[in-house]
Amino acid sequence: MGRQRWVDVARVVAGKLAADAVERERAGAEPLAEVALLRESGLLTLLVPADRGGHGEDWATAHAVLAEIAAADASVGHLLGYHYLHVWRTTLFANPDLTERLDRDTAEHGWFWAGVANPRDDALVLSDVDGGYLVNGRKFFATGASVADRLVVSGALGDRKLTFTLDARAPGIRYLGDWDNLGQRLSASGGVEFTDVHVPAADVLGVQPAPGDPRAQRDSLAPLGFQLVLSRVLAAIGRGALVGAARYTRETSRAWPASGVDRAVDDPHVLAGYGSLLSRLEAADLLVDAATTAFTDAAARGEALTADERGRTSIRISHAKVVTSELAVEITSKVFEFTGARATAARHGVDRFWRNARTLTLHDPTVYKAAEVGRHLLTGEFPAQSGYS
Amino acid sequence: MGRQRWVDVARVVAGKLAADAVERERAGAEPLAEVALLRESGLLTLLVPADRGGHGEDWATAHAVLAEIAAADASVGHLLGYHYLHVWRTTLFANPDLTERLDRDTAEHGWFWAGVANPRDDALVLSDVDGGYLVNGRKFFATGASVADRLVVSGALGDRKLTFTLDARAPGIRYLGDWDNLGQRLSASGGVEFTDVHVPAADVLGVQPAPGDPRAQRDSLAPLGFQLVLSRVLAAIGRGALVGAARYTRETSRAWPASGVDRAVDDPHVLAGYGSLLSRLEAADLLVDAATTAFTDAAARGEALTADERGRTSIRISHAKVVTSELAVEITSKVFEFTGARATAARHGVDRFWRNARTLTLHDPTVYKAAEVGRHLLTGEFPAQSGYS
Amino acid sequence: MGRQRWVDVARVVAGKLAADAVERERAGAEPLAEVALLRESGLLTLLVPADRGGHGEDWATAHAVLAEIAAADASVGHLLGYHYLHVWRTTLFANPDLTERLDRDTAEHGWFWAGVANPRDDALVLSDVDGGYLVNGRKFFATGASVADRLVVSGALGDRKLTFTLDARAPGIRYLGDWDNLGQRLSASGGVEFTDVHVPAADVLGVQPAPGDPRAQRDSLAPLGFQLVLSRVLAAIGRGALVGAARYTRETSRAWPASGVDRAVDDPHVLAGYGSLLSRLEAADLLVDAATTAFTDAAARGEALTADERGRTSIRISHAKVVTSELAVEITSKVFEFTGARATAARHGVDRFWRNARTLTLHDPTVYKAAEVGRHLLTGEFPAQSGYS
Amino acid sequence: MGRQRWVDVARVVAGKLAADAVERERAGAEPLAEVALLRESGLLTLLVPADRGGHGEDWATAHAVLAEIAAADASVGHLLGYHYLHVWRTTLFANPDLTERLDRDTAEHGWFWAGVANPRDDALVLSDVDGGYLVNGRKFFATGASVADRLVVSGALGDRKLTFTLDARAPGIRYLGDWDNLGQRLSASGGVEFTDVHVPAADVLGVQPAPGDPRAQRDSLAPLGFQLVLSRVLAAIGRGALVGAARYTRETSRAWPASGVDRAVDDPHVLAGYGSLLSRLEAADLLVDAATTAFTDAAARGEALTADERGRTSIRISHAKVVTSELAVEITSKVFEFTGARATAARHGVDRFWRNARTLTLHDPTVYKAAEVGRHLLTGEFPAQSGYS
Repeated sequence: MGRQRWVDVARVVAGKLAADAVERERAGAEPLAEVALLRESGLLTLLVPADRGGHGEDWATAHAVLAEIAAADASVGHLLGYHYLHVWRTTLFANPDLTERLDRDTAEHGWFWAGVANPRDDALVLSDVDGGYLVNGRKFFATGASVADRLVVSGALGDRKLTFTLDARAPGIRYLGDWDNLGQRLSASGGVEFTDVHVPAADVLGVQPAPGDPRAQRDSLAPLGFQLVLSRVLAAIGRGALVGAARYTRETSRAWPASGVDRAVDDPHVLAGYGSLLSRLEAADLLVDAATTAFTDAAARGEALTADERGRTSIRISHAKVVTSELAVEITSKVFEFTGARATAARHGVDRFWRNARTLTLHDPTVYKAAEVGRHLLTGEFPAQSGYS
Repeated sequence: MGRQRWVDVARVVAGKLAADAVERERAGAEPLAEVALLRESGLLTLLVPADRGGHGEDWATAHAVLAEIAAADASVGHLLGYHYLHVWRTTLFANPDLTERLDRDTAEHGWFWAGVANPRDDALVLSDVDGGYLVNGRKFFATGASVADRLVVSGALGDRKLTFTLDARAPGIRYLGDWDNLGQRLSASGGVEFTDVHVPAADVLGVQPAPGDPRAQRDSLAPLGFQLVLSRVLAAIGRGALVGAARYTRETSRAWPASGVDRAVDDPHVLAGYGSLLSRLEAADLLVDAATTAFTDAAARGEALTADERGRTSIRISHAKVVTSELAVEITSKVFEFTGARATAARHGVDRFWRNARTLTLHDPTVYKAAEVGRHLLTGEFPAQSGYS
Repeated sequence: MGRQRWVDVARVVAGKLAADAVERERAGAEPLAEVALLRESGLLTLLVPADRGGHGEDWATAHAVLAEIAAADASVGHLLGYHYLHVWRTTLFANPDLTERLDRDTAEHGWFWAGVANPRDDALVLSDVDGGYLVNGRKFFATGASVADRLVVSGALGDRKLTFTLDARAPGIRYLGDWDNLGQRLSASGGVEFTDVHVPAADVLGVQPAPGDPRAQRDSLAPLGFQLVLSRVLAAIGRGALVGAARYTRETSRAWPASGVDRAVDDPHVLAGYGSLLSRLEAADLLVDAATTAFTDAAARGEALTADERGRTSIRISHAKVVTSELAVEITSKVFEFTGARATAARHGVDRFWRNARTLTLHDPTVYKAAEVGRHLLTGEFPAQSGYS
Repeated sequence: MGRQRWVDVARVVAGKLAADAVERERAGAEPLAEVALLRESGLLTLLVPADRGGHGEDWATAHAVLAEIAAADASVGHLLGYHYLHVWRTTLFANPDLTERLDRDTAEHGWFWAGVANPRDDALVLSDVDGGYLVNGRKFFATGASVADRLVVSGALGDRKLTFTLDARAPGIRYLGDWDNLGQRLSASGGVEFTDVHVPAADVLGVQPAPGDPRAQRDSLAPLGFQLVLSRVLAAIGRGALVGAARYTRETSRAWPASGVDRAVDDPHVLAGYGSLLSRLEAADLLVDAATTAFTDAAARGEALTADERGRTSIRISHAKVVTSELAVEITSKVFEFTGARATAARHGVDRFWRNARTLTLHDPTVYKAAEVGRHLLTGEFPAQSGYS
C-alpha cells in the first residue's frame, strides 16, 4: 500500500478514537483497547520490512499516520510513535539476526513495543547469571510499558551499558500504575520495578558504543527520534484542538452581543484568531515534515553517518521541537476564546488538548532545545549528545 | 477591626482552603463546607454596616480579602465576591426598609447570598398573584445559588424588570446541579429552575430604572461590580499559581542537566521567567486596586453619579479586566515550564489554576472589553450599558 | 543553469548589496545602481523563456533568488520580486504576440519592469485618441516605477479596466519622488502623475476579464503573486536581521556582567533567544516555499484554473503572509536584546531591518489575511477576490 | 506651587517639544535649546529645597513632570530625569556645605547637571596635585554632559573611588560628539575625554563608602534612581506613541475595505488593539508610581536605610523596569498596525518612539532585571549592588 492508503487507515482509527476520547480519558483505564485497535489496523507493523512480514513503509508514512492518530488521541499517538522508535532501535545494534527475529515476531504476533530508559533516573543494574543477566532497579516513567508485549530496556553491567529486549510479562517486572498526571493520561507512563528479572544472553541487542566507535553516531540517533516523535505529537495536538474548536464554533457557539454579528463564525476576532493560529500550525507541520526527512536521511546513512551530519539532523529536529512546543501550548489554551464559555463544560473535553500539550512539552525543557539552535547559529557547535539531544 | 486585621482573618481561611484545595476540587462536592468556613470567619458580613450588626468595612477591604481567598481557592473567592455584590446590590434600590431588614438578617444569620440573573438567558417570568408574584423559568448559570441562603433574582413582569429576594430553599426552586466544567468547579454555578415560586411583594427590591431615571446610573454600577470582582479573582489566581509554583521549584524541582547549575532556583530561564511574570502581576494588582477605588468612589456618589463618571469608572474596570484576563491565563499555563515535568502529577493540582483562569476569563470575551477601552481612547465614547459593561 | 547556480549568482549580488547597504540607505538615492547590478547579473531575465532569450527558470528559482537578495537589501528584493511579477503579468492576457515581443525586448535590453496599479487610489483614466489612448491621473505609490524601463499600467476606459505597457520615460509621466518613509527607503515607491500620456493600441495587453470569463481565475492570480513576494521579502528580512545580529553578537558583543559568562555567545538568554526565533523562521521559510509551489501550480493551470483551486492557493499564500508578517516584525525588533546597547549605533544600521519589516507589513493589514484563513477553516469560504486577495 | 501646577508647566513645555519633535530629531543638533527651555520653565530647580532658592518639590512631582516631558520627547525626558538624579546624588555624601552651595548655585544660575560614570568603561584616574586632583581618562557614554553646566564625575584615586563636581566647560574636557544612534538622538550621550582636568579639593563630594559603612546603603540608591528614571521614560514613550497613534487613526487613517466599516476608529481590530495596549500601559504607569513611592521612602530613610529596605526598593523598581521595557518596545512597534501604511511616511516620525524605546531598553538587559525579581521570589535574596542594581 502507498502512504495515502495508510493515512486513510489511520483516519479510520482516529475516527474511532475521537468518538469516545473524552469518555476514555475520564475513565482512565490502561490503554489496552487502544493498543488492540492499533494492532488490528495493521499500523503496528508499518515499519517492519515487507520481507519479514511487515508493511515495509518508511518514516514519512509513519509520521503521516502519527499526525492523524495523535490529533484524535495524543496518548495513543504517543504510544504508537514510541512503538515505532523501539522497533527501529533494535536495528541500531550490529545484531542482524536478533533484529530479524524480532521483526518477524513483531509482524507475526502484532507485538506492541515500549521502552524502559528514562535518562534522569538511576540506571537499572545488570548482574551476570548463567546464560544471561539479572536486572534490578526502578524507573519512574516508562511510557507504554505496562501495556506492551515487548520491552527494549537498558541497564548497566559494570561500566558498560547494555540494551536488551524483554517479554513485558516476564517474572519480576512490576508496573507501578502510578501515572496520574494532568495530561497524556492514557499513555501508560507509570513507573516499573525490576526484581531479578532474567534476560537471556540471546536477547541482548548490544553494548552502547563508546564515543569514536563507528556505531556511535548512528546509535545516538535514538534520542533524536524521540524528540521528533514528540514534535509530531505536539503538532497533532495543536491540529486536533484547532479543528475541534472550529467545529464547536461553527456548530455551537453563539455570537457575542457586542460583536454586532449574528453568527460566531462572523466575529472578526474569532476569524483572525483562528487564522493566525492555523497559519502558524501549517508552518509547524512543514517543519516537522522537514525534520522527518532529515531524520530519515540520517538513519539511512547507517554507520557512515558523520558527527556533522548527525549534528545538522539534531538541529533540524530541535527547530521542530521548539516551534511545536510553543505553539501547541498556545493553541490549546487560546481556542477557548473562540468557542466561548460553554465549551468549558467537561463533557466537551476541550481542555484535554491543553493538558496533553502542557504535559508533553515538559518532557524536557524547550528552552534548552532553543539554546541548542541558538548556539549552532552563533558558534557552529552542535549539541552534546545526551538522552535528550 | 481595620483592614489588615481582616486580611489576617482571610489568610487564616485561605490557609485552610489551600490545605486541601486539590482534594476538595477532585471530590467536587457542593461547596457547603467552604461557605460555612466563610460564615464562621465573619467574612460574610464584612460589608454590612456596623449599626446593623455587620463589620462596616469598605470595598477596599473586601477586595483585599478576596485577593487572599481567591489565591487559595478561586471558586470560593468567586462565591465570596459575588456574595458581597449581591448584598450591596440590595442597596441600589430606593427601598431602605427592605435593605435594612436584609442587612440585619444577613448579619444575624450569617446569610450567604447569590444571584440569579445571567443576562444571556431568557428572562424569568413573573405573574401577579395575591400579595406578590409567581416566578417561572430557567437560568443556565447561577453561581453560588445552590449553596446560598438568600437569592437576589430578576424577572420580567410585562415590560418591567423586577428585582427581588428569595429564600434559596423556597418551594419551586430546583437546582440542576449541572455545573461540570473544567474550572471553577466548586463555584456551584449550575442552572436553576423556577416553577411557580412565590415572591411576597414585601421582598421586591424594586424595578429596574428606565434610562434617564436618576437611579439609572447608580443601578448600572452592578455589572461593573461583577467585572471588578472577576478581575480581582483572576489576579488572585495568577498570584496563587505563581507563588505555588515558586514553592514547588524551590522545594522539589531538580535542575535540568543542560542548565549547568545545581539547583532549579539558579536556572537562568527559571529566574527570568518568574521575574517577568511576577513583575506584570504586580502591575495587574495595582490596576485592580485602582479600579476598586474608582468603583468605590462611583458607588459613593449614589444617585448623583453622572453618566460621565460612570463611564470613566467602567473604563478603569475594563483596564483591569483586560490585563488580568490575559495575564491569568498566561501565568497559569507558563509556570509549568519552571517547575518541570513532575509537577504535572495530578496530586499537585497545579493545573487547577489554569483551569480556573481559563473558565473564568470566558465569562465574557476580553477582547470586547479591550474594544471598549480602545473606543474610549479613540473617540471618547463610553461603552453602552449592558449586563457586561 | 540550474537553480543552485542562480542562487550562487544571487549570493554574489547580495554580498555586494550588503557591503554598503547601510550607507546606500542613508544616502537615499534612487536605486539606479542597484537595478543596474541586477541587470548585469542576469537576474532580471530569469523568468523569460529560454527560446526568447531569457533564462527560462521557474518561480521556485526566482523565489530562491529573492530570498538571497532581500536578506541583504529588502528594497532591492522588493523591486526584483515586483519586476518578476510584472513580466509574468504580461502573460496573463490572451495576447501572445505582445507577450512574446515584450519577453524578447526584456531579454535583449535587460529591461527592468515596474507597475502602476495601487488599488486604493482612484483609477487612472483612459480616453480614446487616434491609434490608442491618452492616460491621465495620479497614483500615490508605484514601487520601482521611477527607476523602471517599462511599466505595466492599468486604467479605466469607461467601465472597462485596460492593462497596457508603457515606456517608463514616455512624455507626460512625472515621478513625484515623494517616497520618504521609514523603511524600504530604496524601493522607489513614490507617486506617479500621468498627463496625456499616449498609449499605442499595440501596447494594450487586454481588458480585465469579467467574473465568469474563463480568463478571470487566472487573471486573479496577480494579487496573490504580490502577496507571495511580500511574504518572501519579509521572511528574508527576518533572515537578514537574525544572521546579521548573530554575527554582531559573535564578533562584537560583550557578555553582560550579571550573566556570569565570559562571552556573549554563552549567555543563556542570548542562546535561547536566537534559537527560538531561528526555529520559527525556518518554519516560516518552509511555509513560503509551500506557497510558492502552490502559486506555481496554480499559474501552470492557465485558463483551466478553477475558483476552488484559486481559493486554495490564496489560502496557502495567506498562511505565509500571516506568519512572515508577525515574525519579521518580532525578529527585527527583538535581536537588539541579543546584541546589546552598542549595536544601536547608527553606523551598524541594525534598525533598518525593523524599519523595512514594519513598513512592508503594512502594505495591507495582516489581520485581514488571518481572517481569510480563519473564515476558510470555519466555513470553507474562500476570500473574495480583490487587489489584495 | 503644588504638584498639579508643575504638571501644567510640564505640559506647556511638552507641547512646545512635541510641536517640532520630528524636525528637531532629524536635525540632530545638540539639545541646547531644549535645555534652555527646561531652564526657563523652572523645571530644572524643581527638587532644590525652597530655602535654597529652588521649588522644594518631591520625587513624585518630579516623576509626574518627567512623564509629561518624556512622552513628548524622550531624549529631553531622559536628560531631565538624569539631571534630577545628579542634583540629588550630591546630597548622598556627608558633605552638607558643598551640597548647599551646589543647590544655591543651581537655583541661582539654573544649572543643568549631567554625570560621567558609565560603569562598563574603565574608571577615570585621579592623581594628586596641589590643592586638588587631576583627572584623566575616557568614558564612552555620558548622557547630557556635552550640554551641561555642571558635571558629577567619579574617578579612582588609588583604590578609592572619589566623586566630585566639575564645571562642564573646564579646560581639558573634550566632548567627542560621537552619539549617532538610532534612538534617544537628542540625549547628548556621546563620549567624554579628560586630559589633566583640574578638580579643586573643595569640589570633591566624597569617597564611595565601603560596604558596611553606614552611608553605604544610602549611597547605593543612586543606581536604583537611574533604573527608576529609565522606567518612567519608557512608560512615557509608550504613552506618547499610543496617544499619538490614536490621534493619527482618528484624524487620518482610512478604514480598510475588508473591515466592512466606514471609519478606521470602528475597525474591531483597531479598537481591541489599542484597548489591550492602553490597559497594560495603565498598569505599567501604576507600577512606576509605586516604585517612585518606594524610592522616595527609601531615600528619606537616609543613613538609617537597611539592606533589607534597600533590597525591597530595588525589587519594586525592577518590577517597573521589566514591565515598562517589554511594553514600550511592544507598543511602539505595534501601533503602526492601527494607523496603516501611510503613517510610515518619515514626516510623521511615528518610528521615533520605537527607536527611542529600543535604544533605551538596552541600557542594561531587562532579562537580568527579571532574574533579580525571580530570584527574590524564589529564594528571598536581593540583588547584589552594582552600577545597574
